[in-house]
Amino acid sequence: MTPGPERFARARARMEETGVDALLLSVGPDLPYLTGYEAMPLERLTMFVLRPTGDPVLLVPRLEAPRVADRGHFTIETWDETDDPVARVAAMVGAPRRVAIGDHTWARFVLALQHALPGTEFGPANAVLAPMRAVKDAEEIAALERAGAAVDAIAAGLRATAFAGRREIDVHRDLVERMLAAGHERANFAIVAAGPNAASPHHEPGDRVIADGDLVLCDFGGTMDGYCSDITRMFCVGEPTTEVRDAYAVLAEAQEAGVRAATVGTPCEAVDAATRAVIDAAGYGDFFVHRTGHGIGTEAHEDPYVVSGNATPLVAGHAFSIEPGIYLPGRWGMRLEDIVVATEAGPHRCNHAPRDIAVVA
Amino acid sequence: MTPGPERFARARARMEETGVDALLLSVGPDLPYLTGYEAMPLERLTMFVLRPTGDPVLLVPRLEAPRVADRGHFTIETWDETDDPVARVAAMVGAPRRVAIGDHTWARFVLALQHALPGTEFGPANAVLAPMRAVKDAEEIAALERAGAAVDAIAAGLRATAFAGRREIDVHRDLVERMLAAGHERANFAIVAAGPNAASPHHEPGDRVIADGDLVLCDFGGTMDGYCSDITRMFCVGEPTTEVRDAYAVLAEAQEAGVRAATVGTPCEAVDAATRAVIDAAGYGDFFVHRTGHGIGTEAHEDPYVVSGNATPLVAGHAFSIEPGIYLPGRWGMRLEDIVVATEAGPHRCNHAPRDIAVVA
Repeated sequence: MTPGPERFARARARMEETGVDALLLSVGPDLPYLTGYEAMPLERLTMFVLRPTGDPVLLVPRLEAPRVADRGHFTIETWDETDDPVARVAAMVGAPRRVAIGDHTWARFVLALQHALPGTEFGPANAVLAPMRAVKDAEEIAALERAGAAVDAIAAGLRATAFAGRREIDVHRDLVERMLAAGHERANFAIVAAGPNAASPHHEPGDRVIADGDLVLCDFGGTMDGYCSDITRMFCVGEPTTEVRDAYAVLAEAQEAGVRAATVGTPCEAVDAATRAVIDAAGYGDFFVHRTGHGIGTEAHEDPYVVSGNATPLVAGHAFSIEPGIYLPGRWGMRLEDIVVATEAGPHRCNHAPRDIAVVA
Repeated sequence: MTPGPERFARARARMEETGVDALLLSVGPDLPYLTGYEAMPLERLTMFVLRPTGDPVLLVPRLEAPRVADRGHFTIETWDETDDPVARVAAMVGAPRRVAIGDHTWARFVLALQHALPGTEFGPANAVLAPMRAVKDAEEIAALERAGAAVDAIAAGLRATAFAGRREIDVHRDLVERMLAAGHERANFAIVAAGPNAASPHHEPGDRVIADGDLVLCDFGGTMDGYCSDITRMFCVGEPTTEVRDAYAVLAEAQEAGVRAATVGTPCEAVDAATRAVIDAAGYGDFFVHRTGHGIGTEAHEDPYVVSGNATPLVAGHAFSIEPGIYLPGRWGMRLEDIVVATEAGPHRCNHAPRDIAVVA
């Protein structure tokens, strides 16, 4: 199923189930998922308005209208620099009881729309669209696999490159370039964290020069044909210490346990518990400071979240990361991440790059 | 003035003036402007809470806490994967009459906070912070000039490169790399629009191969030491036609008129009218489809907007683009853009790259 009328019909069915009279989408992944068009993250409002009946409307700033590919799926309306786009949206929806607004919509537009529609209850579009987006069809899974294969090749290729003497930021830029060269339209992130910096799970790559003996975490992903990649692999300049090797064996076992647990019908929190049990048993439980994973699709992080407290059972087509980590503040950090799809035939990995610590120069 | 206590004090004074009991900042430029820390644009809430008195608090996901540089300016609190960060923020602010929330905050968090604070009126943080952010001090102007000099050098360097035979997307990537190599920490955009594509002011660079005779619009900018660059220059593969040369002479005159008009005390809309008058007089008025410019600082587009209807008079320290354009659908488009600062001594340009159409191979 591609963006367009089929998805509009499914969204309308969900709107009816959830009592939503209008769906209002701006920046963020919901809009391209439904329409194929991505809003610019700027101060000029772009808004897609889907009502139970009638033509869907995409309202865009006049100067951005040429960017919209008109496939006849919806009406394109434009607003000029001195128009009030919020008033235009309000006029389109009338006085609805309840609207759902895209999760990434800027606060300034949420507040302005609430002001223009004082009798209307606002809810998150997530409640309408997240369950749709979370379950991938065959085409979407194929897109995730293609994006996965692209970063697999980069991860495998990195094993033959020299790390020592380069700054984290140099490797970061190299990864960004490789993702673009490999066909990603966008690099979403490229964490490169060396030595003690890897103990910060979301480390911002900086000027630290990678040195002999450094254990280096590389976690990178982007968007390719609209679907996201996300992979984490570990590199070591020279042989890892025994402590690191032993901890990594625990981590790899935990990751494998998480993947094995990700069968249809298993609650997300049970998958989280499966990785955590292995790390806890080895005594590293206090150093695994984040959830096991996140859903992935048109958005880098989306439903379903593989986290304690999420009792949602996996269904065939759920796609998510399994990425346990162990972080020793001031010393080192490690994470191992693959994207996995739940299928009736069992968990299916989208990443196949070697999973051991790569010893690099 | 740098991020930290001085800016907190000014923000608190503005909160008092505008009747705001708490300022809540998440993703977007307000947070780094006040604190020096930038939130990750992800589903885990980061929120800075500034109340009239007491320690300011930055609430971050536990796994991102190592990213925060602790300069002692505010209290850092962390939340764990199974905590409810919205409830934590609500508890911090009590039951305020009125809060102001950062303009880029995701709708999902706005709605969740409104739900958690049912008696509270929510307004935009813009009302508190925009006037502060719009007026740059000497340090900020110096930062804008450094960022401007970096893209000036790139624009000048491009004049010696070959365009023909490359795709728009190749030149786009080249620009991104050049911005990063020139010291920008982030490339925000790099529009490369060749031939008729340039008639789309916000064209998405694509697979079009640049050909002999193409007029090519390059509009690029990024963030360097926290402040944005933004420049547009035109390139032509071979000699431009007489029509293009003549239209460009009009455009350059319009841009110059806009810069000259940007004196302290002049309303923003009068600056817009100054560029528009020149283009109107030449008969191209219908093809100048956007405002004259936007403010610039820690955000690529911010107050003050140089647009019809904005009667705000310029004050010394306002920094903004002057970027008229002429767009002939299906044929060609052109824009000329510099960043300008209003000063008591008159309008001051931050960009100095040659402004003529560069004839390239």
